[in-house]
Amino acid sequence: MTEGSIEVVYRVRTTQEALAARTEALLLEQTVELPRAALRSTFARERLVGRVLGTLEVGPGDYRVTLAQPELAVAGDPAQLLNVLFGNCSLQPDVLLEDLRLPPGLVTILGGPRFGIAGIRRLLGIQGRALTCSVLKPVGLSVAETGSLCRTLASSGLDIVKDDHGQADPSFCPFGARVRACLDATLDAAQGTGRRTLYVPNVTGTPKTVAEQVRVARDLGVQAIMVSPMLIGLPLLAELAGGIGMPILAHPAFGGSLRISPQALLGRLFPLFGADAVIYPNFGGRFSFSRDECGAIAGALRAPQGPTLPAFPVPAGGMRMENLQEVLGFYGRDTVLLVGGSLLDAPDAATLSARSRQLVEAAASHSYRP
Amino acid sequence: MTEGSIEVVYRVRTTQEALAARTEALLLEQTVELPRAALRSTFARERLVGRVLGTLEVGPGDYRVTLAQPELAVAGDPAQLLNVLFGNCSLQPDVLLEDLRLPPGLVTILGGPRFGIAGIRRLLGIQGRALTCSVLKPVGLSVAETGSLCRTLASSGLDIVKDDHGQADPSFCPFGARVRACLDATLDAAQGTGRRTLYVPNVTGTPKTVAEQVRVARDLGVQAIMVSPMLIGLPLLAELAGGIGMPILAHPAFGGSLRISPQALLGRLFPLFGADAVIYPNFGGRFSFSRDECGAIAGALRAPQGPTLPAFPVPAGGMRMENLQEVLGFYGRDTVLLVGGSLLDAPDAATLSARSRQLVEAAASHSYRP
Repeated sequence: MTEGSIEVVYRVRTTQEALAARTEALLLEQTVELPRAALRSTFARERLVGRVLGTLEVGPGDYRVTLAQPELAVAGDPAQLLNVLFGNCSLQPDVLLEDLRLPPGLVTILGGPRFGIAGIRRLLGIQGRALTCSVLKPVGLSVAETGSLCRTLASSGLDIVKDDHGQADPSFCPFGARVRACLDATLDAAQGTGRRTLYVPNVTGTPKTVAEQVRVARDLGVQAIMVSPMLIGLPLLAELAGGIGMPILAHPAFGGSLRISPQALLGRLFPLFGADAVIYPNFGGRFSFSRDECGAIAGALRAPQGPTLPAFPVPAGGMRMENLQEVLGFYGRDTVLLVGGSLLDAPDAATLSARSRQLVEAAASHSYRP
Repeated sequence: MTEGSIEVVYRVRTTQEALAARTEALLLEQTVELPRAALRSTFARERLVGRVLGTLEVGPGDYRVTLAQPELAVAGDPAQLLNVLFGNCSLQPDVLLEDLRLPPGLVTILGGPRFGIAGIRRLLGIQGRALTCSVLKPVGLSVAETGSLCRTLASSGLDIVKDDHGQADPSFCPFGARVRACLDATLDAAQGTGRRTLYVPNVTGTPKTVAEQVRVARDLGVQAIMVSPMLIGLPLLAELAGGIGMPILAHPAFGGSLRISPQALLGRLFPLFGADAVIYPNFGGRFSFSRDECGAIAGALRAPQGPTLPAFPVPAGGMRMENLQEVLGFYGRDTVLLVGGSLLDAPDAATLSARSRQLVEAAASHSYRP
């Protein structure tokens, strides 16, 4: 059996004197969890202990530590992969998970995006331009109000309209009734626009609830779903991607991504676990990601390392009508522009429609880089 | 309908001038996710927007912000509760989740520990003293080696022997065979000790894998399981607790708990979601929790706020044979002492047995505070 290695990149705060010992401790912590001297099993010592590929001083007391961990330690399991990457050491404040690279066998087991950019484009029948997306919020709208908002947005020609990620299955707007109303709304709107907007419901809860919501959604004709992998559990994303046969849009809620770099969590792990499109806070909005971080996330999603499909970056927030061309210039065509607040704070439905059409027009008319 | 409120305590880094606006933004972010002026739905404005209970300057630029969020926003769903507590704002680096208090209705929905301290004591038949526990590691041991280590530890009279949390279902030590070998080992050992050690297998993977492992474990006679809720997903913990009828030991791996206070994540959320006993890094070990933080976690586990059972604190790490009495003095009787490395770095089985018996003896002979 040839085994691959998982390359894991950490940032570690330590001193030059302590670096070697800290790196050795980190290496052992993530698999055998015992000092080398206490490893009396030859198999454990030889096959379960990884090695240090390199250390690099990035700044004063700030080191990039690259480890190779044995694929064998992951046992082909999505949850155990997370454990090897950032299980115990997530509790050590001097360590941050910066990046990762999986061997092809493990990428194949996880499966990555099943649809990716090309699959979502095929589903929508749109090539050569960025996609447009907005969101049904605030939570608190009734089924009728949600359907009506969906109709307004779809009638403006938006490509995708999705539930808010905070929309579960509340008594005031139950899942099944909401999905039906939104699908009806996109069908109505298609009569005017000639093209049906993709409605993407938010699926959330315990695994049983998620399974039931997927069943209901599929029965009603839904063609893509959204989940928040960190809320429902990343391993459930892997299971869904392998089983539902629909594109999955992933939301970063509960990602708390400061201890894992946004590029590693959103740009690598989410798509590896099966997300076809990944939402993340765009620069310039009410979150903290920088322009460079956003570029790195988008780059990681579009250019996966292993034998897996590219996924759509879905920058959200920080987009105003005035800067749409600039944002399109930055991200280019393989992007879903998700604009929520800047549309939805419109004082009335007419303004909301006008702004939505402006977004649609911006994506259609932009001169994309070749 | 009377609705309760969820009390959420954050630590926010801001300035006195910006505090009011930052607090308002945080309040809205976690439910309606739109500015107040953009909320045209009366229901959303009146029922889905919480209120600020208080702000307190803890230090320069460091504020404790207490919000009341409407229970209605949670829609009775475990995943959505996490979203309301720390969904979007987990991505904002100026915010840390410090504490929470749920209304009784929501505590009842989540269910909390189904066994708790009393249930685990009943299962083991042990009252009036701390429990002792060790772990089967390193990963890499074969089924026979794992069984043999389990026999050695059980023969020493330890109350609980658990799998390492990094033990999944690897080819070199498959789940079913391992569980059988360990159960056999505890049965053998009981012939000598007169009392059967509780063997707790680690259950991990996607929801389907977890369900299958639980089924196998139960069929083989397992009476308690361990999970890492942050690896498998907290909502799956809630589902398991409600369905499996066995105590659940929770491991903090992937908890990355710096952005959520250890007390909130391990002391409150884990037991609310159903953990009967919660492992956490003890002070003085290779993790960073302070003595005060450990005391706070233990306190939160033993004295839950709502109509729910107390859960066992399981401090791990930082315990040496020399300081066991001090640790017992600090934690008292309602504690499971988990000692791994300090036993397992023994050079041979005889020393391992001797140390394990020392641990057992320490827990039995300590003069517990009344």
